[in-house]
Amino acid sequence: MKALVLNAFGTYPQPTELQLPALEAGEVQVEVLAAGLNRRDYYITKGLYPGVSFPVVLGSDVCGLLNGQEVLINPNINWGNDEQVQGADYHILGMPSWGGLAEYVQVQKDRIYPKPGHLSSTEAAALPLAGLTAYRALFVRGRLQAGERILINGIGGGVASMTCLFALAAGAEVWVTSSSPAKLSEAQNWGVKGIANYKEEHWAKSLLKETGGFDLIIDSAGGKGFADLAKLTKPAARMVFYGGTKGKIDGLSPQILFWRQVTLMGSTMGSDADFEAMLAFVTKHKIRPIIDQVYPAKAVADAFDTLEKSSQLGKLVVAIKGGFD
Amino acid sequence: MKALVLNAFGTYPQPTELQLPALEAGEVQVEVLAAGLNRRDYYITKGLYPGVSFPVVLGSDVCGLLNGQEVLINPNINWGNDEQVQGADYHILGMPSWGGLAEYVQVQKDRIYPKPGHLSSTEAAALPLAGLTAYRALFVRGRLQAGERILINGIGGGVASMTCLFALAAGAEVWVTSSSPAKLSEAQNWGVKGIANYKEEHWAKSLLKETGGFDLIIDSAGGKGFADLAKLTKPAARMVFYGGTKGKIDGLSPQILFWRQVTLMGSTMGSDADFEAMLAFVTKHKIRPIIDQVYPAKAVADAFDTLEKSSQLGKLVVAIKGGFD
Repeated sequence: MKALVLNAFGTYPQPTELQLPALEAGEVQVEVLAAGLNRRDYYITKGLYPGVSFPVVLGSDVCGLLNGQEVLINPNINWGNDEQVQGADYHILGMPSWGGLAEYVQVQKDRIYPKPGHLSSTEAAALPLAGLTAYRALFVRGRLQAGERILINGIGGGVASMTCLFALAAGAEVWVTSSSPAKLSEAQNWGVKGIANYKEEHWAKSLLKETGGFDLIIDSAGGKGFADLAKLTKPAARMVFYGGTKGKIDGLSPQILFWRQVTLMGSTMGSDADFEAMLAFVTKHKIRPIIDQVYPAKAVADAFDTLEKSSQLGKLVVAIKGGFD
Repeated sequence: MKALVLNAFGTYPQPTELQLPALEAGEVQVEVLAAGLNRRDYYITKGLYPGVSFPVVLGSDVCGLLNGQEVLINPNINWGNDEQVQGADYHILGMPSWGGLAEYVQVQKDRIYPKPGHLSSTEAAALPLAGLTAYRALFVRGRLQAGERILINGIGGGVASMTCLFALAAGAEVWVTSSSPAKLSEAQNWGVKGIANYKEEHWAKSLLKETGGFDLIIDSAGGKGFADLAKLTKPAARMVFYGGTKGKIDGLSPQILFWRQVTLMGSTMGSDADFEAMLAFVTKHKIRPIIDQVYPAKAVADAFDTLEKSSQLGKLVVAIKGGFD
């Protein structure tokens, strides 16, 4: 089959002929229609994940065909029995096990779900990992309630845009930040209540004055900016973070957080139960992932360039079927 | 009456004759037997709390006599209706309202509780604020369960020593840290499972290797050391902090926390329900607060010197009745 194969760090996956291994017990082979990309894929090409062995086929998000039906794949492998945290054997489709950037992918049969009917195959391929991460951060960890005021920091990424759509569907008052006026403007079209550009001086102070603070704050940046976010909490607020693209958290005031009885929660991915709840939520609210661009498989390098620049708003998807020609 | 009166920042309370105002509706006058000190009292003398007007009588922790019965005072004033967080009008006995470092103190009648029978008046005076803070941090916020492994960072303070006794009574495996070998040695007499000196190089790494990590970590220091504590979390662990004596939190890795799905919780004081639950817990388990030293009222300056040096292990109590002579 044709696959986008990563053979070395510092390179991007290349179209290559590859032989899949024999199916293992319980596995099925899915013909891939489209595969979503995640920041994780980019980090793996840079050697920032442990345990990579070459050649490897990346791609955690797959919409494909099984027995003539369009299906989605749950990217969780071995979450384990504890809803609170993944087990030691947990990993995600697409490294170490070969993923969706190939004409076929092999997964355990219980990873297969019908594609939500309101989504195209491209939209469905944008959903799994980002939707799972957003759902757990927002509802399972963050316990978002209708009517609450929520701030989503850095609206550009796939998870952040999904978080925004989910929060809007749940009846929250949503505010978003970005350094990009274009992204902020686009988010206003989705129905957010307010925006803030974190490159502007005193943005956090102004936002606090304007809103009175937030019940829930969702972040994936960390770094120095996290301390500004903490100042935007209402009493008994929650902060959930699922990333740390800006590095270690510095200058965080314990006094603000303990006096306000704030709860901060790390969150990553989600359990199988979270995945099913996410699919049900997306289906019920007919949510369509925000897609920045679809790249044919042969142009996957362009997609990785976009991930490198973080210039996208929403998800990047690779068209696999027909995309190698 | 005689009272220990604070008249200016940078000084300590001085024995002074003082006239109490007339009782307000619903208030009772309690004759003070003994009053516990808290770090808060020291901070107020240094001008580190807003809203101080002179003269003021400090002292949040009171055991006294009312109608011939020994009673304890709940130091909460106006917590409000939300169990999750204190309301905007919340304050604590002993600034702005006059507190227990005086022969008499006036409080609303519903603040009065019978003294637990197993405690002396000195021990009872050591209980309220530290016991309330410890109880909420450990059980309400931290949700400690029997059999869990818990780390209490900085065992010297009144809240920390109380937290340690409560955790032991609840059937947890307790580890404590300090920079003082003497305090660590004393904590071993209480029944802790292990100790660590955080002045030693690689103490956190060694402790992680020795224990495999903790289910719950309780801190009141913040600062740079908080990031070391975070590395000691088990998957799905909780960290509760009720202070920040070492200042802002720096160098905290979001990756460790989100990958392990850790929850961090700020906690301060406790609700009236927490206070009652704390009294019931202390009574049931016959817990006796660790008292470092009892000072007669006339020697209160020595007690404040000890607070300044943080050399105590456990609570400092001021003997009021008879202590002025």
